Amino acid sequence: MKKHNFSAGPSILPGEVIENTSKAVSDLNGIGLSVMEISHRSKDFQAIMDEAVDLFKELLDIPNGYQVLFLGGGASLQFCMVPFNLLGKKAAYLETGSWAKKAAKEAKNFGEVEVVASSGDKNYNYIPEGFKIPEDADYFHITTNNTIFGTQIHEDYDSPVPLVADMSSDIFSRPVNVSKYGIIYGGAQKNLGPAGVTFVVVKEDILGKVDRMIPTMLNYKTHIDNGSMFNTPPCLPIFTVKETLKWLKKLGGVKKMEEKNREKATLLYNAIDDSKIFTGTAEEKSRSMMNVCFVMKKEYEDLSDEFLKYAQSNGMVGIKGHRSVGGFRASIYNALPLESVKALIATMNEFEECMLNN
Amino acid sequence: MKKHNFSAGPSILPGEVIENTSKAVSDLNGIGLSVMEISHRSKDFQAIMDEAVDLFKELLDIPNGYQVLFLGGGASLQFCMVPFNLLGKKAAYLETGSWAKKAAKEAKNFGEVEVVASSGDKNYNYIPEGFKIPEDADYFHITTNNTIFGTQIHEDYDSPVPLVADMSSDIFSRPVNVSKYGIIYGGAQKNLGPAGVTFVVVKEDILGKVDRMIPTMLNYKTHIDNGSMFNTPPCLPIFTVKETLKWLKKLGGVKKMEEKNREKATLLYNAIDDSKIFTGTAEEKSRSMMNVCFVMKKEYEDLSDEFLKYAQSNGMVGIKGHRSVGGFRASIYNALPLESVKALIATMNEFEECMLNN
Repeated sequence: MKKHNFSAGPSILPGEVIENTSKAVSDLNGIGLSVMEISHRSKDFQAIMDEAVDLFKELLDIPNGYQVLFLGGGASLQFCMVPFNLLGKKAAYLETGSWAKKAAKEAKNFGEVEVVASSGDKNYNYIPEGFKIPEDADYFHITTNNTIFGTQIHEDYDSPVPLVADMSSDIFSRPVNVSKYGIIYGGAQKNLGPAGVTFVVVKEDILGKVDRMIPTMLNYKTHIDNGSMFNTPPCLPIFTVKETLKWLKKLGGVKKMEEKNREKATLLYNAIDDSKIFTGTAEEKSRSMMNVCFVMKKEYEDLSDEFLKYAQSNGMVGIKGHRSVGGFRASIYNALPLESVKALIATMNEFEECMLNN
Repeated sequence: MKKHNFSAGPSILPGEVIENTSKAVSDLNGIGLSVMEISHRSKDFQAIMDEAVDLFKELLDIPNGYQVLFLGGGASLQFCMVPFNLLGKKAAYLETGSWAKKAAKEAKNFGEVEVVASSGDKNYNYIPEGFKIPEDADYFHITTNNTIFGTQIHEDYDSPVPLVADMSSDIFSRPVNVSKYGIIYGGAQKNLGPAGVTFVVVKEDILGKVDRMIPTMLNYKTHIDNGSMFNTPPCLPIFTVKETLKWLKKLGGVKKMEEKNREKATLLYNAIDDSKIFTGTAEEKSRSMMNVCFVMKKEYEDLSDEFLKYAQSNGMVGIKGHRSVGGFRASIYNALPLESVKALIATMNEFEECMLNN
């Protein structure tokens, strides 16, 4: 049976990316060696790194003055790297979910943290509005998509101080006005590749302003000066990222991807809104195009486990909601085909019909 | 033509490990999904992580009281994680090469560093002896194998303070008396798997003694408490590590591996010692079983480039020496078959004969 992979991350990757990675693991471009066993200093790997960086810049339309890095350690390591490099006295954070909260908590080890707004009062089911970004902050940190709670910031904020964004779960899902950001970072394991590599887009002129000991590996300058090869980078994950970016380019880039994502999300949210037994958890205008969170309506709550089983028996993978929200979560990242969304909707409708008629 | 992969790292992996990784990238155990696109919280991935940890403990004969972690960020990140977690006032370091030096340099950001001995006077071509490990140090750091200079520590030191060892390039090449160590760490990309995952074997009772802010991701306790899954781990590299450990176990474990490594190294060093044109760079008793460094004898120095070309034309990959030593380096890690060593020796002999008879 065909699997429909709605996992929140690590998550679905395009079929041809998987196939090309599998081939390169066996033999990279017919050189007689696996991509896993060549030196990161070899011309074969340098070509992979260069292509990944170039495609990243091209597809996200990154202006001059920015560097693209591929690092290890995960986006969680960025939670301390950002304040290590940028926090002089005070930083501002927008608290839109668990990851945003963790990022802010980490920054408190380095200086004053002002949480400009939080949606914690409603279990993070909306993106706060009307907050003021303090002009005396060293930077303002946001999490653009909240994987757990299914909310998303749908604009590029105007910020009087460098805007730092964790885009782990919506990078390359829509065009971004990069010039409005100081740093964009994220783990690859949603829209880009396998777990194990973290991208960092950093505006060079915001660095070097903090008077603090920064461990070598946590200093962005170390990695900028060495083209992400100060130490051995996560070569295989970077290869897969490069393949995903090639796929994205062939498909038409982020603008085209945004259209496809909107189509998928609209279909699914409409099905939820039309349902008698399911209901969405996020406020409508804050709804994420990447993670669709929904639950059983109160009166049908005891059907949750049954629906999960039914969905699994129909080939749906990873749709159990995070424990912080409960219910269901369909992650509909870039690589998820429209047919999987349609299959999920069909499954929801069948289940609903069956339940209401019995 | 068959390639003989002498790369220093990322480096050769066993054929069946490459094949099994390629298969799992296509479809993990027939579940219809790639190992790259399943949740790290899934039972399928948890089984991979558990097996990797269990095999690691079994094959290295790790006593109770130790934890095995698989982290991102590379061994270079450990250069700061070690002092973050252990350096209260003073640490001792043995300087046996570039990596050892980098590790010591990083520690200086955290407190006093006493370099107990250095072989820098002879371009790190030997392992110092007769040094004294200060009893008031918080730990003593060594690099057991020096990839660049081809030297290796062939014993497990007795240390009055916790012994911390970077075993990036000789882990699982020989039995280790783990009980003598406080921490053993290393990048996977020599004897274990692809780049992108770092192993840390840590004795739990040496932790928690330092009064310092430790960023969450750099605190060993974070990763111990969460079974290496505080954040998304580098799943695919961990899968490959697990496959390599399975291969090692089937082959007979580290004792058997040590015999094979000794056989390969002895053959190659003998060939170098018997040669009229090549000569080894490391002092005999410090010679590494993993990285064999050699150069042309002074009078034949101008033949270096020609030999490199000849070796490459015979399928030898990665034998150019590091710029710090020059000449040639044959990395003969666990996965390198005896036949590759024999092929290299044959190539050296052919070249020598040809040169001396012309």
